[in-house]
Order: sequence, then C-alpha cells, then structure tokens
Amino acid sequence: MTPWEVKGDIDYSRLVEMFGTQNIDDKIINKFVDHTGELHRMLRRGIFYSHRDMDKVFDDIEQGRGFVMYTGRGPSGHTHLGHLMPWLFTKYLQDKFGVELYFQLTDDEKFMFNPDLTLDDTRNYAYENALDIIALGFDPEKTHIFLDTEYSNMLYRIAVKVAKKVTFNTAKAVFGFNNSTNIGSIWFTSMQAAPAFLPSVLRGKNIRCLIPCAIDQDPHFRVARDIAEGIGFLKPALIHCKMLPSLAGSDKMSASIPDTSIFTVDKPKDIKKKISNAFTGGCVSVEEQKLKGGNTDVCSVYQYLYYIFEEDDGKLEERKVKCKSGELLCGHCKQYLSDKVVTFIGAHQERREAARKKIDGFMLRDCQGE
Amino acid sequence: MTPWEVKGDIDYSRLVEMFGTQNIDDKIINKFVDHTGELHRMLRRGIFYSHRDMDKVFDDIEQGRGFVMYTGRGPSGHTHLGHLMPWLFTKYLQDKFGVELYFQLTDDEKFMFNPDLTLDDTRNYAYENALDIIALGFDPEKTHIFLDTEYSNMLYRIAVKVAKKVTFNTAKAVFGFNNSTNIGSIWFTSMQAAPAFLPSVLRGKNIRCLIPCAIDQDPHFRVARDIAEGIGFLKPALIHCKMLPSLAGSDKMSASIPDTSIFTVDKPKDIKKKISNAFTGGCVSVEEQKLKGGNTDVCSVYQYLYYIFEEDDGKLEERKVKCKSGELLCGHCKQYLSDKVVTFIGAHQERREAARKKIDGFMLRDCQGE
Repeated sequence: MTPWEVKGDIDYSRLVEMFGTQNIDDKIINKFVDHTGELHRMLRRGIFYSHRDMDKVFDDIEQGRGFVMYTGRGPSGHTHLGHLMPWLFTKYLQDKFGVELYFQLTDDEKFMFNPDLTLDDTRNYAYENALDIIALGFDPEKTHIFLDTEYSNMLYRIAVKVAKKVTFNTAKAVFGFNNSTNIGSIWFTSMQAAPAFLPSVLRGKNIRCLIPCAIDQDPHFRVARDIAEGIGFLKPALIHCKMLPSLAGSDKMSASIPDTSIFTVDKPKDIKKKISNAFTGGCVSVEEQKLKGGNTDVCSVYQYLYYIFEEDDGKLEERKVKCKSGELLCGHCKQYLSDKVVTFIGAHQERREAARKKIDGFMLRDCQGE
Repeated sequence: MTPWEVKGDIDYSRLVEMFGTQNIDDKIINKFVDHTGELHRMLRRGIFYSHRDMDKVFDDIEQGRGFVMYTGRGPSGHTHLGHLMPWLFTKYLQDKFGVELYFQLTDDEKFMFNPDLTLDDTRNYAYENALDIIALGFDPEKTHIFLDTEYSNMLYRIAVKVAKKVTFNTAKAVFGFNNSTNIGSIWFTSMQAAPAFLPSVLRGKNIRCLIPCAIDQDPHFRVARDIAEGIGFLKPALIHCKMLPSLAGSDKMSASIPDTSIFTVDKPKDIKKKISNAFTGGCVSVEEQKLKGGNTDVCSVYQYLYYIFEEDDGKLEERKVKCKSGELLCGHCKQYLSDKVVTFIGAHQERREAARKKIDGFMLRDCQGE
C-alpha cells in the first residue's frame, strides 16, 4: 500500500505491524481522559487507533514544552466526507489543547502525480478545499493554511535539507516508485516532510509536531521521522485514523468514484440519491431480511453513522441490534443517515460560503498580498 | 562525463558528437560578424565552439522577436578564472545585443550534491560569487541575479512542470545517477531548467533564451530542451565553450584543487606563486629547452594567455613560434602571464568591493526587502 492508492478490504491491525506504528493502548487513552476530561468518540470507537510517539506529545504537554499540529490535503478534487473525518478530530484536538495547526495543500503533488490535472486545476481545488477547512471552525488565530506553490520559498529551504538525506532506494521502497516515475514525484516527499519542521524554523526553537492523518499517509512521515534528528529537528509524532469507507462498501472513500462519495459541494438531492444507492448489509428482499436480519459489518450506511454521524454510542448499538434481528430495514437507516448528512452539509455549506471572506486571514504565503 | 565531474584530457570534437550539438561553423561566424561588425577572440579562437539553435537566435534578432540570456553558477566555493571566462563572453554578448540576462546561483544544488557543504555555506558563496558577476560590469538594468533558495516561489512553479515530464530513467541516463543518489539531486535538473522559461513567464509571452555555458553543462539543458515544447515554451538555445585548464596541465580548472586555480579573491603573492608553479611545456633543463624548444600544446601558461589574457593574435602566435624554437623560456612566459593576471585581478577586486553596495539592485527575490 502506498499513500496514493488504497483499495480493497483493509486489515488495520496488519498496517500497524507493517508500518511499525503503535496501537493506541490504555495508557494513551488514559492520557486523553486525564487531559480532556472525556474521550472523543473517534478514540472511543477506535477510529483513531494507531500512533507514533503520542506518549512524547503528552510528556511535552506535561513538561510545558507544548506541541503544534500539522495535517494536509492533496487537492485533486473537491473535499468529501472521508477528508473531513480526520479534520473534525484535528479541530477537536486544537480546541482541547489550544495549539497551532499548519495545514498543507499539496497542489504541487497532485499536479505531478496526476497526468490529467494542470497546476491551475490543483491550485483551484486547493482554494476550494481551504473553504472546507475554514468552515469547520478552526481557530483563525492559530490555524495557518498554505499551498506548496505559494509558500515554496519557505518550504523549499527545509525540503532541500530533507531531500539530501533520502536516497532513491528509500523513496522507491516506501512509495513503490520505479524508474519511469517522474523526478517531481520522487522529490515530493521532501515537500511533505517540510511542514513538520516549519514551526521549529519559524519559532527559532524546536517544538514537537503532531500529525493527525489517515494511516495510509504514514509512509511519508516515516521518511520524515527517519531523517528528522539528522537535520536537527524532533521526530514528528503521529496519530492515525482508519479510512471512511465508500458508499459502495468497504473501500476507502475515493474522489475518483464520485457516485460513492459525498462531497461538501453536493446538493441535497445528490446526497439523498447517493445514500439511497449505498451498499448495505441487508438481504435481497424485505421478507428475507425480516427473517435473517442484516449485517452491519459490511454496511456502508452503518459505517457512516459509526464513523461520523451517530454521536450517541447507545443509539448506535441499538441500531446494530435491531438490524441484526431483522427489525430494522435498510430504507429506514438510509433515511436516517440521509437526514443527518443533508443537515450537516447544508450547515457546512453556509459556513463554507462565509469562509470566502475569511480566507486571506488563514493563508500563509511567501509574499504578503500576492 | 556528467556536469559534476570533468577530469582528464577532453576531446571536444567527441563531446559535440556525444551530446549531439553543432559546431560553430562559418554560417554562424558570419552572423556574428554581420551583427557585431567584429569577431570576439573567443569565437576566433574556437573557445566558444559549439551550439544548439544559434541560427534560430539570429532569426529571432533579425525578425524583431529578440532573445534573452540565462547562465549560472554552482556556488560551492569562490569564483576562479575558469568561471569568469564564459561570463566575460556573456557580458560581451549583453553589450553587443543589449539583452536581459538571468543569472542563477544554485545554492540548493551545491548543498544537495556536496556532503560537506551546509546551506549557509552555499548561500554565502552565492553572495560572494554575485560580487564577481557584478564586478564584470553587467548592465544593472538588464541583469537579474538570484539564489534558488531566495527565488524558489517563482522557480518552483516552473520546476514542477519540468519535473512532471522527466523520468528517473532520463535523469539516470543523463547524469549518471544510481539508486543511492539522494532525491534532491535527482530533482535538481528541474530547478536548473526553470530559468530558461522564467523570462517567458515574467513577460507573459514566449521569448527564446540563449544559454552561454561550458560544454559540460549541456546535459542539463538537453533535458530542458526535450521537455520545453511539451510545457508550452521555446527550446532554449545554447552556445558552449571549452573549459579553462588548470595550472597543473590539461584538466578543467577545479575549485577543489586550490593550488592550481586562480581565484578572484587571491592575493598577488598567491597568484605569482601559483603561476610560478604552473605546469608548462618546457624541458627539464634550460639547456635542453634551448636545444629542443617547448610545447605550447600542453603548456598551462600558454593556455591562459590563449583563453583569456593575450588579446592580440599576433603576439600569441609569435610566442608560440619562439617557444617551439627554444628562444623563449618558461620563466619569461610565467612572468608575462603573472603580470597580466595580477593586474586583472587587482582591478577586479576593486570593482568587486564596490559591488557590495550595488548587490541589492541586481538580486531577484520572491519578496522585496527579504
């Protein structure tokens, strides 16, 4: 698995072994409870389930050194719910810990990796994505969004230091490159590593960076961690989430199959249609389902409630029981989810429009007023 | 031969064949005479001897489209005479054709390729080298010098377009990379290609770029030429010179062997000492030389006069004849060259000091006042 392709059923325990990350265990869970007085549902439900060095982040908090966060988005299209999920948790962390967040939009990456996208395309999408970020309510004083091509003066100085320490062999092994890969794609991991060190450069003093991201993005930061100390920085810490499935079933939600993903720019009727066509764990007929019950494990509608839209654990469990017993039919669940998503996206779209006026206050650019 | 390593005797005709460039023939020579009313000694003597598309540059001049120039320097140390040689010719071209010149200082390259240099080192050398460029008298209104790390916002947007079109296979074949090469070095040719297209981007209209450089730098621009039209630009033209030998004999002058190169910051006594130790074509004893004569073909002192310091063809030929006949001894030639070099460097150093005040007027940076 490379950060650019996630398909098929995902064995998340296997990824922890493969990547060499740590499961979020009771010790880390207790730290979250100690520091926030609660346990966010994405932690409770094991959606954020893996980490690197979260214990050190808590040490840094406890010893007054603090930390910053960095996450990002590859702007190859509009934002969908799969992207929003880790951002919602990142926003929660910012609220609870009051920390700065650096948000990278990799317009260079998506341009270099995708033969069909121009740099104008990826820059336009980056600005569209930025609206979604702002709409989530990140703290304007502590949130810094940047496009790689608009902040490259600052990033490039850090990226060349990363690049000097990474051989083609390493990039090849980590990202599955071959000799036909273009040299921009080979280079790119340097630009993705740079923001992990940026806050230390800007402050003139090392500070640990925590990267909340989906588990498939870990390889980029494994490279960043490997070289960090050699160029004078702290290794970034990570906290990893699972990937929101697509409405077609158990794959990661993908912007390249628009009918099975819900985008933040979708109209209510599109959302309703997509959800009404969603893959469920139901049987082929109502009669059969009433008799045998449904299977929430493979049901995308249930997954959406589980991952994002049903905050109440009790209600979620009740739904599961009723589904398995045949009491609850797919039409009902689809309607329930659809109402929640339409409401959520509707409110998001209002904040998204309002974000157009706020965007310049969030952007980091090499030159003021560009 | 790669652009980073030139050693041993160089067969310049073979390089033209190997690289697939054109010899500067009578047609091109006549164009220079037509347009300048003279023939610069570096053209007369075949020091600038190879090109790509110089005929198209003359077409562009004649048809009113004009052209711009781009050359560069890898700031891994102080400037020596081997660097100045093509710059002197570039200055001549700017004077004669009144064109803009973009001068790239690749502090990123020298940092990424050289394990022993920090980015501070290469940036400091870049500013030292810039003083030498300015000291040569380039037109302040038409000459734009930049460090890659200070102009990367502008360059990176162009470089990613180049990088998308160049595979690792190509970079490997052209530059002799292997799997242990770092990903910054692999990427770098994109940054070296970018300034060839920069003037077109800045003008919003394509204009041909002529690159005067030593022949060993051709491979970078072969890559740039290969991808130019695919990303909407004109292929850059090139005019190539031979490489000034070192004082040890027939290799290219190299900054890594300081005793056999003359630097612009050398003191008169250092210059005199280096030239007194120079390899010549003389015999082991004065008696033998008077009898057998010397060999100017292998003599570094003669080469320095030929390449830079003896403007008068008649005097140069006379010196050759007298050397071969045994009439002229090495001590005399060394003294003659030494006087010329000491005078030249002395005047250069005065202009170089004066350049410190002018430098900001020449520099292109992403952000004013950085």
